[in-house]
Amino acid sequence: MKSTLHVFKVGGHIIDDPQALQAFLNDFTATEGAKLLIHGGGKIASELGIKLNIPPTLIEGRRITDEATLDVVVMVYAGLINKKIVAKLQALGHNALGLSGADGNAVLAHKRQHPSIDYGFVGDVDKVNAPFFLQLLQEEYVPICCAISHDGEGTLFNTNADTMAKEIASSLTSHFEVSLVYTFEKAGVLTNPADDSSWIPKITPTEYASYKASGVISGGMIPKLDNAFEAIEEGIDRVLIGKTVVTR
Amino acid sequence: MKSTLHVFKVGGHIIDDPQALQAFLNDFTATEGAKLLIHGGGKIASELGIKLNIPPTLIEGRRITDEATLDVVVMVYAGLINKKIVAKLQALGHNALGLSGADGNAVLAHKRQHPSIDYGFVGDVDKVNAPFFLQLLQEEYVPICCAISHDGEGTLFNTNADTMAKEIASSLTSHFEVSLVYTFEKAGVLTNPADDSSWIPKITPTEYASYKASGVISGGMIPKLDNAFEAIEEGIDRVLIGKTVVTR
Repeated sequence: MKSTLHVFKVGGHIIDDPQALQAFLNDFTATEGAKLLIHGGGKIASELGIKLNIPPTLIEGRRITDEATLDVVVMVYAGLINKKIVAKLQALGHNALGLSGADGNAVLAHKRQHPSIDYGFVGDVDKVNAPFFLQLLQEEYVPICCAISHDGEGTLFNTNADTMAKEIASSLTSHFEVSLVYTFEKAGVLTNPADDSSWIPKITPTEYASYKASGVISGGMIPKLDNAFEAIEEGIDRVLIGKTVVTR
Repeated sequence: MKSTLHVFKVGGHIIDDPQALQAFLNDFTATEGAKLLIHGGGKIASELGIKLNIPPTLIEGRRITDEATLDVVVMVYAGLINKKIVAKLQALGHNALGLSGADGNAVLAHKRQHPSIDYGFVGDVDKVNAPFFLQLLQEEYVPICCAISHDGEGTLFNTNADTMAKEIASSLTSHFEVSLVYTFEKAGVLTNPADDSSWIPKITPTEYASYKASGVISGGMIPKLDNAFEAIEEGIDRVLIGKTVVTR
């Protein structure tokens, strides 16, 4: 039997709230077995960008990443957030090791191609270095990955953290029974965005189609759920969005 | 016979100059055998701090690091500079792995104690996790360390990069014949700071004392040379400051 691996993704609104972050890290450390964490930090990057006169430009929730914006996201994701999380986890007795996709050649990507929009330094993942993650997990490190990838030719890319979490999780399904857990500021997929108790316990592709058609699920939840259903298709055993179980 | 290990430290003026950085990285990759790199980046951190209205405060060349300044140095050292170097080295065929002292519990430190000055979040190194570095080197990773340490209790510290390089190098002398190479914007220890061809080929403690007494060596070179002579005392086989060999 394969052993379990929990891949957590934590969003920027939790990272930016010291209490919520601590609560998340307590849950994370209480999870037994092999685990790794992928984090974003878009909210903090946007705030720093504004202070530096590099205001964020988002198209359909995707950040247009020119060279100055890339510097900001690399500083915030790979520096500030990653090292704060690593230091906190070390204090909680976990041998955390912070990574970007360039470190150990962890995540290779190419510049996003789009017929009409130039996203700049935004990367779509080509390949996760699964043997590298496997080795770290076997040596009982807890990899903490920020959503920065590279092209192997010296260029860093801003990468969607939900996707990066899914890609890393998918790459490890032949070695582990993988659970992918998206943690964010809501309790789960909600039927009423204003009511955190309205989370859906379980959602199937058919239900998802129906929720989308009726407009109950919209906006930023759509790419998150698309990602989650892709994860299931790619052999990930269990996907949670908050408390909502995403299933076949 | 022990195999050789080269520990390079590269300073902020080189990192900030794309051509000088590329030249350094070419030299670094041309060096055979096990190697690791420790980098600073104070110049870039100061520039970012100024843009963010957090101007640097330096006392005798040491940065006073309040919480806002710590965030700046962590962003710049562990994020921007570290990941750019890692990506460039990956492109040059080296399996670089970026680290702060918190990652893998690499470098433990305590807050600097001083009778009259509160340096803030500045750490003096207590312990290098030599088995961790040894394992990475044996697995043919090239560790790229920024000058950030931690206390194991969740706090990050700004740490002098020259000292951090020396401490990491010293911790590995029982396994390797260690060369410590300080690379900076000058050709070496100069007798005339305005003339880059005036570098001293070799300097002993007696000569150092005499150069200091006559004022030929002063300012920022003094802590650098003190560090270098300490390194020799701690069993490091060979110390270079630029082209200047520091010797018994």
